Amino acid sequence: MKEEKVDEKGLSAKKSENFSEWYVQVLTKSGFIDYTDVSGCFVFLPSSYAIWQKITEVVDKEFKREGIEDVYFPLLIPERLLAKEKEHFAGFIPEVAWVTHTGETKAEERLAIRPTSETIMYKSYSKWIRSWRDLPLRFNQWNNVLRWEFKHPTPFIRSREFLWNEGHSVFATWEEAKAERDVVIGIYKMVLKDYLALPGIVGRKSDKEKFAGAVESYSIEHVMPDGWALQGPDFHLDGQNFSKAFDIKFLDKDGRHEYAWQNTYAITTRELGVMVAVHGDDKGLVIPPRIAHMQVVIVPIYRKEGVEEVNKYARNVYETLRNDYRAKFDDREGYSPGFKFNEWELKGVPIRIEIGPRDVENKKAVIVRRDNGEKKEVSVADIPRSVEETLTKMHEELYRKAEAMLKSFMHLVEDYDALKKTLKEKGGIASAPWCGDGDCENKIKEETGAKITNIPIDQGKIDSKCIYCGKKAKERANFARSY
Amino acid sequence: MKEEKVDEKGLSAKKSENFSEWYVQVLTKSGFIDYTDVSGCFVFLPSSYAIWQKITEVVDKEFKREGIEDVYFPLLIPERLLAKEKEHFAGFIPEVAWVTHTGETKAEERLAIRPTSETIMYKSYSKWIRSWRDLPLRFNQWNNVLRWEFKHPTPFIRSREFLWNEGHSVFATWEEAKAERDVVIGIYKMVLKDYLALPGIVGRKSDKEKFAGAVESYSIEHVMPDGWALQGPDFHLDGQNFSKAFDIKFLDKDGRHEYAWQNTYAITTRELGVMVAVHGDDKGLVIPPRIAHMQVVIVPIYRKEGVEEVNKYARNVYETLRNDYRAKFDDREGYSPGFKFNEWELKGVPIRIEIGPRDVENKKAVIVRRDNGEKKEVSVADIPRSVEETLTKMHEELYRKAEAMLKSFMHLVEDYDALKKTLKEKGGIASAPWCGDGDCENKIKEETGAKITNIPIDQGKIDSKCIYCGKKAKERANFARSY
Repeated sequence: MKEEKVDEKGLSAKKSENFSEWYVQVLTKSGFIDYTDVSGCFVFLPSSYAIWQKITEVVDKEFKREGIEDVYFPLLIPERLLAKEKEHFAGFIPEVAWVTHTGETKAEERLAIRPTSETIMYKSYSKWIRSWRDLPLRFNQWNNVLRWEFKHPTPFIRSREFLWNEGHSVFATWEEAKAERDVVIGIYKMVLKDYLALPGIVGRKSDKEKFAGAVESYSIEHVMPDGWALQGPDFHLDGQNFSKAFDIKFLDKDGRHEYAWQNTYAITTRELGVMVAVHGDDKGLVIPPRIAHMQVVIVPIYRKEGVEEVNKYARNVYETLRNDYRAKFDDREGYSPGFKFNEWELKGVPIRIEIGPRDVENKKAVIVRRDNGEKKEVSVADIPRSVEETLTKMHEELYRKAEAMLKSFMHLVEDYDALKKTLKEKGGIASAPWCGDGDCENKIKEETGAKITNIPIDQGKIDSKCIYCGKKAKERANFARSY
Repeated sequence: MKEEKVDEKGLSAKKSENFSEWYVQVLTKSGFIDYTDVSGCFVFLPSSYAIWQKITEVVDKEFKREGIEDVYFPLLIPERLLAKEKEHFAGFIPEVAWVTHTGETKAEERLAIRPTSETIMYKSYSKWIRSWRDLPLRFNQWNNVLRWEFKHPTPFIRSREFLWNEGHSVFATWEEAKAERDVVIGIYKMVLKDYLALPGIVGRKSDKEKFAGAVESYSIEHVMPDGWALQGPDFHLDGQNFSKAFDIKFLDKDGRHEYAWQNTYAITTRELGVMVAVHGDDKGLVIPPRIAHMQVVIVPIYRKEGVEEVNKYARNVYETLRNDYRAKFDDREGYSPGFKFNEWELKGVPIRIEIGPRDVENKKAVIVRRDNGEKKEVSVADIPRSVEETLTKMHEELYRKAEAMLKSFMHLVEDYDALKKTLKEKGGIASAPWCGDGDCENKIKEETGAKITNIPIDQGKIDSKCIYCGKKAKERANFARSY
């Protein structure tokens, strides 16, 4: 990491010109992740893992406040359990990594590395749940799952191993189960908005796109800067599908045996990819302040003389900030300020504080915002307040900008030609009247490559015709080409 | 879970009579864990997983304060990487779970589920580390690992999947690497003492017992109530063993290429098993207050009349406690107070607060300590203070009791007969003079079943003879039969 390599470290791809090349460069050159010898898997370096830790911390706290508790089930699932529920897990089977040998011994039965844990969890649930007194049972896991997809893997967006929460609730009634939907989606929306500065579109999945085990699936959908949609966190009302398959019955207050009502929901490390893609720029990552591993970096600028004074002053500034912010004093020798500026910009640290001899003299410092390059000279006493203000403002503006981008990708179309034209010329998501019929949905996908990302909830009545068949539309659905 | 089942839920085995049966009963009947269809793996239920979460939180905070950062490497390791380092990982190979197929496709190369991550991490380290400027590099992972042991699995103590931290540091000098030892062992000792109320014996492993990749290994050793030793957290000074094997070289300040110095260290979910075994009693779990998932349970006692008054008063008490303590108000209907007392005792909740009609009348409550059954009547205004005091006292006394048990198992022996007699009659750990020769160590193990758990650091000079060969002793070593 010698200084001469600075050019090598910068990004050679531009986000607006070659988004996918830019995406990989910005992740690896900034030290956010690295590749390994395992295809489709990668290393989370401290700056990315810290963000996932923060997401888990924030979401977990809200889950616990709601009465959702954490458990941990085994990584490996016997084949017979997975096979039992082929109907609901058919989609996962081609992606399962199978353990066949332990040491030199052939396993009696193949063991799947969990692609998701319904089968092993619900086997236990059916044992644990006996009476209405045992409900609700609201358990969640934070773990790693593996889906050996054969499509082109992309870090965070489509990686074979990923980290997530998997929530698996059981209720005595459909009403209680349904009430959990808005609570959980609300928590996911909150962490996206308040921490990752990301908006999303909440809606119901179409029958074709929903989770096979669900009665109704919901999602928060993102749009990436290239105009392709990407599914974020999801929530499934599984009804009694699994309770019937796994015999999860309870004795109700009237002494009757009833099947329980279940939900499942997840947020994954994919959100880190969305965050990088949405906020980053041609200089590198732009990390939203509240979730950033490092929030402030202080870079001293030396002239030939007065190095000690600058260092002492800059270190004092660091000391005033370090308790309240994740801060770093970059006093590395042998690197020019310009090199350091580029490096911290590449890493996306929200605020850089520059301190040179003149600042020492005038008792000032220069605060530079990562996202827009805005510079502000502030007096030393004002630094903490100014840092706080700048971080708050930066978070808000990142969110507004992301929201504006999302809106710019949202189109209302009223007929099929407009849908095709819009998707082709503008990308993004086109909201179109739809009859609700899977045949129209299939035809549209075949002909345009766009699927229904989701269908906004509570639309009220609409008075339009399905863009494909011309029959009476049931609702407006969001169509997009999707990752 | 009807009331009639109360007897079924109680423990039928006594800790002092049949420790291993008691251990399994106390874990499962209390709802701390449950078994699954995967042999040797089990479910962490909320009360156990919360303790592991707290351990990770406390340790992680200390790690970060020290400059140790979290990363996440892939779960799967290609066989060729593991094979590369056969010398150091020979011990793990027979226990590796191998992925051979993904979906219907045979994998080009077998993939190991990580038994530990040196091989995959150090491949990356050799790429990342170039110059002294890149050092120290101190990364840690919190993850799950799998070791398919064929010995009798026991939850926490010897389970095929377990959770742990694996710390992997790289330094420019041996001195810096050595300085990390006391810091990390200090953090582990702190979490054991201050949270799990567990003492341990710190020492160096013998050459025979050390980690194959290490120059020196250190451990914190426990003694279980049955007198068998059990290894707790460990720390390895790996010297340049791995840096030479994985080519982790750096350019030092003088422009020379040098191999780096490495350490590895871990604390695992095994500590939950030690905690349960050491503190539990014939009524169930006894969870140390600071780490307990639930610290206080409030149980109302109703007479025929005045149910509402008792509930209102008890709920108020709950409200005064819930912000500062992990508290529960157990107002379940259809269960007698006696049933509830038994259940919460089984679960090991540190404090039970009993509130009956007379307490409402007199503005009092009865505080009952789980570990010694001590009851204290306190006025309602005094409850928060009394809860705080009781929790603090209980923690201290649990630790003192555990320390007393450990001391009762520590024996000084000066000759081989005494060693044999002591191990046979008293169990525990016998400290004996030893010449330092592996042959004597092997013979002692063959003849007594006892291995060297560890060798206390900084013993000063000793003037004794090896209990086996009679030659001059180098140091005192701790011998024990060990799990």
